[in-house]
Amino acid sequence: MLLSVLQANAAVLDVEANLLTVDRAARRAAQAGADLLLTPELFPVGYAPLRLRGELDPANLPVIRGQLADIARRNGIALVYSLPSVADSGTGVFTQGAGWHIAATLVDATGAELLTYAKVHLFGGEERKAFVAAAEPPAVVPFKGVRTSLLICYDIEFPEAARAAAARGAELLLVPTALSAGFDAVPQVLIRARALESQLNVAYANHCGQEDAYIFGGGSVVAGPDGALLAAAGDGPELLFAQVGTEAVIEAREAVPYLRERRPELYREWESQLPGDGA
Amino acid sequence: MLLSVLQANAAVLDVEANLLTVDRAARRAAQAGADLLLTPELFPVGYAPLRLRGELDPANLPVIRGQLADIARRNGIALVYSLPSVADSGTGVFTQGAGWHIAATLVDATGAELLTYAKVHLFGGEERKAFVAAAEPPAVVPFKGVRTSLLICYDIEFPEAARAAAARGAELLLVPTALSAGFDAVPQVLIRARALESQLNVAYANHCGQEDAYIFGGGSVVAGPDGALLAAAGDGPELLFAQVGTEAVIEAREAVPYLRERRPELYREWESQLPGDGA
Repeated sequence: MLLSVLQANAAVLDVEANLLTVDRAARRAAQAGADLLLTPELFPVGYAPLRLRGELDPANLPVIRGQLADIARRNGIALVYSLPSVADSGTGVFTQGAGWHIAATLVDATGAELLTYAKVHLFGGEERKAFVAAAEPPAVVPFKGVRTSLLICYDIEFPEAARAAAARGAELLLVPTALSAGFDAVPQVLIRARALESQLNVAYANHCGQEDAYIFGGGSVVAGPDGALLAAAGDGPELLFAQVGTEAVIEAREAVPYLRERRPELYREWESQLPGDGA
Repeated sequence: MLLSVLQANAAVLDVEANLLTVDRAARRAAQAGADLLLTPELFPVGYAPLRLRGELDPANLPVIRGQLADIARRNGIALVYSLPSVADSGTGVFTQGAGWHIAATLVDATGAELLTYAKVHLFGGEERKAFVAAAEPPAVVPFKGVRTSLLICYDIEFPEAARAAAARGAELLLVPTALSAGFDAVPQVLIRARALESQLNVAYANHCGQEDAYIFGGGSVVAGPDGALLAAAGDGPELLFAQVGTEAVIEAREAVPYLRERRPELYREWESQLPGDGA
């Protein structure tokens, strides 16, 4: 399966401009034969947690989702996008004062939703003021024969989050991110390690340039199940391509059976000996 | 604290030759002002699991331990060494047929034992025939003001093992290893990731050259809490030095509080949703 990864600069709260960027990337990616386009965290609205919470009308979210599904459908390419989502109130309906998650959604080339995930590890004070952290582990769905899962940005820096996806069968982990400039070791070391230690493909799509007060360094990558970089972006706008599949995953897992040789019962016991979650 | 790391070739079951190698390294390291010398997995007896199990008289193990404590004392340097240990029979006394662990021990510059650890993740068929896997998490002791812990070889490839040490307060993780040639991504990617994701120092001491059927590629490293390599060996005999302390650990943990922002209660819950330990 041919994967494409959009690295680009978003305009904060200029949804029309950002959707145009996604649409153009989807067209280029589809023309190049890609099956899926991965886009950065909160890209359709721009990365600006407090402004989003203050200025984005949640009633617009379903509209934006519809437009993104339409981009997938028109271009005939699956799409991973990231948007705020209203935390489950039990009714499934937005209520005033309800918390917001940072979510990511995989839609297929017909625009149908295959998978959604809400960010478990929020980064920094602004995110924590604007959003609430989710608690569900990443789920896994088959996509073009590859068991696919989602994490968002800071989540992937925690080995436990990627491991939860791998332990549920993930062979491909798609990660929208908004990583500030100056943290190159995250894509160059941690993303490669996540891929190698669980022997799966990891794609990590970042913003570049400035969005309000944030400066993003790009550096988007795709890593294979041996930890090697299959594609890597510089610090400007870029559309990456990488072939990802199950063959290399199976081969790596046969050579060194990390997932089979985990000792989850011990890990549970070891964690239970620690003081509780302070969160 | 100045750390030294021995990368060397061991002669299988030639304890005298191997102890001479350790003694010389300890002398050089102490003369250079090092506080501690880390040596590779099973170095005093050579890395040959089945031959060790078949030919090594366990009654000799306390003698070898005494000689290693003496090397530490004579050279005035703390030492981490790795040897087989007899699995706890409840009596603390060796009994015929008792299982063996692969263990690592930290002795101080007087030869006194500060810490011991037995390998939890055994690698490959030969290790599993010759040894039994332990189940205790790595403990942590203060050494020269740095909270220090031990893992062995394959253990560190599992993020859960390093995390267990970090969650127990480790600021320095000392890892004797016996990594076959051709697995350079382990020191270059995984060791750096372990250091960065838990923001501690990790030192990884490998064999080099051939020992019976095994060919070791060297590549020993020391990584700092930002994931950068503080020292890295080639593929031949080498004595590495690196300054490791708590300042960089504290600084990294203040900048990005990974350990504080872990969600251990979720991880336990997520693990408990998985099928049980197959081991």
